[in-house]
Amino acid sequence: MLIEIICTGDEVLTGKIVNSNFSYMAQKLEDVGLSVRWGTTVGDDRDTLLDAFRHAGARADAVIVNGGLGPTIDDLSQEIAAKAAGVELVLNQEWLTTMEEFFRRRSRVMSANNKKQAMLPATAEILENPIGTACGFALDIGKARFFFTPGVPRELRRMLEEQIIPRLLARNGTQTAIRLKRFHSYGLGESHVDAMLQGVEELVSDGSAKLGFRAHYPQIETKLTVRGADKGDIARKLEPVVVEVRKRLGNFILAEDDDTLEGVIVKELQRRDGSLAIVEMFTSGQIATRIAPLPGAETVFRRGIVARDIGDLYTALGMSGHEEITTQTAEAVAHVARRDAGASHALAVLIDLDEGPDRIDFGGSICIGIATAEENVSRRSRILGGREWVRLGAVELGLDCLRRYLYGLPVTERIDFERN
Amino acid sequence: MLIEIICTGDEVLTGKIVNSNFSYMAQKLEDVGLSVRWGTTVGDDRDTLLDAFRHAGARADAVIVNGGLGPTIDDLSQEIAAKAAGVELVLNQEWLTTMEEFFRRRSRVMSANNKKQAMLPATAEILENPIGTACGFALDIGKARFFFTPGVPRELRRMLEEQIIPRLLARNGTQTAIRLKRFHSYGLGESHVDAMLQGVEELVSDGSAKLGFRAHYPQIETKLTVRGADKGDIARKLEPVVVEVRKRLGNFILAEDDDTLEGVIVKELQRRDGSLAIVEMFTSGQIATRIAPLPGAETVFRRGIVARDIGDLYTALGMSGHEEITTQTAEAVAHVARRDAGASHALAVLIDLDEGPDRIDFGGSICIGIATAEENVSRRSRILGGREWVRLGAVELGLDCLRRYLYGLPVTERIDFERN
Repeated sequence: MLIEIICTGDEVLTGKIVNSNFSYMAQKLEDVGLSVRWGTTVGDDRDTLLDAFRHAGARADAVIVNGGLGPTIDDLSQEIAAKAAGVELVLNQEWLTTMEEFFRRRSRVMSANNKKQAMLPATAEILENPIGTACGFALDIGKARFFFTPGVPRELRRMLEEQIIPRLLARNGTQTAIRLKRFHSYGLGESHVDAMLQGVEELVSDGSAKLGFRAHYPQIETKLTVRGADKGDIARKLEPVVVEVRKRLGNFILAEDDDTLEGVIVKELQRRDGSLAIVEMFTSGQIATRIAPLPGAETVFRRGIVARDIGDLYTALGMSGHEEITTQTAEAVAHVARRDAGASHALAVLIDLDEGPDRIDFGGSICIGIATAEENVSRRSRILGGREWVRLGAVELGLDCLRRYLYGLPVTERIDFERN
Repeated sequence: MLIEIICTGDEVLTGKIVNSNFSYMAQKLEDVGLSVRWGTTVGDDRDTLLDAFRHAGARADAVIVNGGLGPTIDDLSQEIAAKAAGVELVLNQEWLTTMEEFFRRRSRVMSANNKKQAMLPATAEILENPIGTACGFALDIGKARFFFTPGVPRELRRMLEEQIIPRLLARNGTQTAIRLKRFHSYGLGESHVDAMLQGVEELVSDGSAKLGFRAHYPQIETKLTVRGADKGDIARKLEPVVVEVRKRLGNFILAEDDDTLEGVIVKELQRRDGSLAIVEMFTSGQIATRIAPLPGAETVFRRGIVARDIGDLYTALGMSGHEEITTQTAEAVAHVARRDAGASHALAVLIDLDEGPDRIDFGGSICIGIATAEENVSRRSRILGGREWVRLGAVELGLDCLRRYLYGLPVTERIDFERN
């Protein structure tokens, strides 16, 4: 099935906003085994829209159009859809009632403009939008089935997942039950993860399991898609693959599905009635920024301290003595920070940066200390790749060491991104 | 002139990476008064690429193609460009020499694959790429001039600005000298800035000045483009407009051109041999993250403290007494933090968050304190719009108050984003 996506709107076409709706849709379709062949971006202009719809109707089997369903005069999708399909634009009483309901429930007055949103091509099939006033709809133009979606990301997301993907899978003759299982890892490069997972797809003999990867440095997301006749069938197929992925990636899996590295740390500390103090240098508050705003962190996050210079850091903590950045220093700093904050745990991430201007092989030596009332542990690592790369790497390494410590996993296990 | 952009590559088409090259190019063209009419995204596939090139060659006057110039087998741009133009692919000795030079200077060995990058359509005009091995080139397909560019963002950016935009302006018959002047402001909404600047374009009587806006909450970027015969002509036209924009937006302009809010703060503190301590609550280190990593901040940034709870914050600073979040508390906290850190200035941003789950009218009351050895100042503000919105607003408001204080501007001037 040849799928095309058409994104409309002057804000996208002029680059005022980055088109993240496109990548979102393309990824979601990939996740269920469908591929986009062609993407088109056009502005709020009648002739260009008509051209784009006709081209797509001639070459594609299914087309998703994003944007242009709003109440203002530059929202043209319904009008041009009707024209391209050669049908009338008519008032859809059903959607008008839904909109009136929508405004009544929110104690707001519906403006006259909004009525335009209920003008739909005569042949349109409504796609429900339970969280907005833009009516999604589907109709045929040329040889393709067109799906019109709102530009507001959260409305688009819900409509795509609940309304459009099931229709696409049905048209494609694909088994419609599908499940996406995700594993987040840190410390292994994409090609390394790929190599480690060779052959796991074959654990499902009918070929309905598919692996994919998405790298957002420093983490790698491993995506496992399984299709089946129903939920039970999928669960049965999924289970041995999940067991195998967990076994192979082992300690490197930091979270699964919607969980995050910082989230599992907060959750584990909450479970133990624990609390946390954080000490940072070059990471400049970015570690605290990952932890402190999370729901539940009010009771877990106790204190964060940032200093750019190790001497200043010693002063801030009321410490004296030698001021070299070593694993011993990191342990000592974590020890004092934990005690002063009255926290159950402390994480200190100290960095000795290379001298000189930023460059591709600019690096930093990172000393991480973790302290509890009972013990101190530490690791040393060296990361290259420019200032920003070193900073991102140090944030992730620090948080991952803390996760490993909390879960009883080896804190010093070697990662792909470090140099000796 | 009808301009089209074609982005190629499976990573973009499948949504693995968000297509920020497209918005970058579209914005840069808008900045010089050119508009993109049509955007196309296709994968690394011969038939689709050929289709895309032929469509664009039939409808556009100029086409920018991004990606597909690399050394691997899925990089197809040169091959398909030659096919679409009906010419041979030939080894370009000039570019091969340039590449060999490129590798020799970096003491690296050129792999055999790279030779593919010097195979260009026979009619190609080379577009210099001084920082990479992908050769940009231009040629005619159909009625359009095509410009082929590398996918690596920094290579694309340089080629677009130095090679392609001048050629497009020349083809368009536009006066080729152009200057983009940018003003960054905080505290005024986009429509408010727009209204305040009504009529300033008309200060240049020949219509060669153009205003545009880009909102990236909480800042607004005001872009002023002026075209002219040469640099002197532009400077003459630009001057009265710049004076007027500065006068109208006044204290709300926080920086111009490539300067940033955090950058001007660090610069001003450096100039005075000053230093800074920062105290944060719900902003969780995000204020420190803006300041501390900057070049020059090593000597300016002294200490950052984060606590989620005002009681913990008092403990961290060794303070006792009442613990309500007020402007007095903010001043007291800043006072102590400055003294303890031995800094010339301290900024404290305290937040009293609303109760309950996140929602669109979730808000926070923000108390900001600034301390020096001589005095303490403060302001109180209330921001609504959900947890993340409040956090972003508080970070910006805190930094902007510090900028205003350092520059002798009123710290308590009302902003559009606050509620009473």
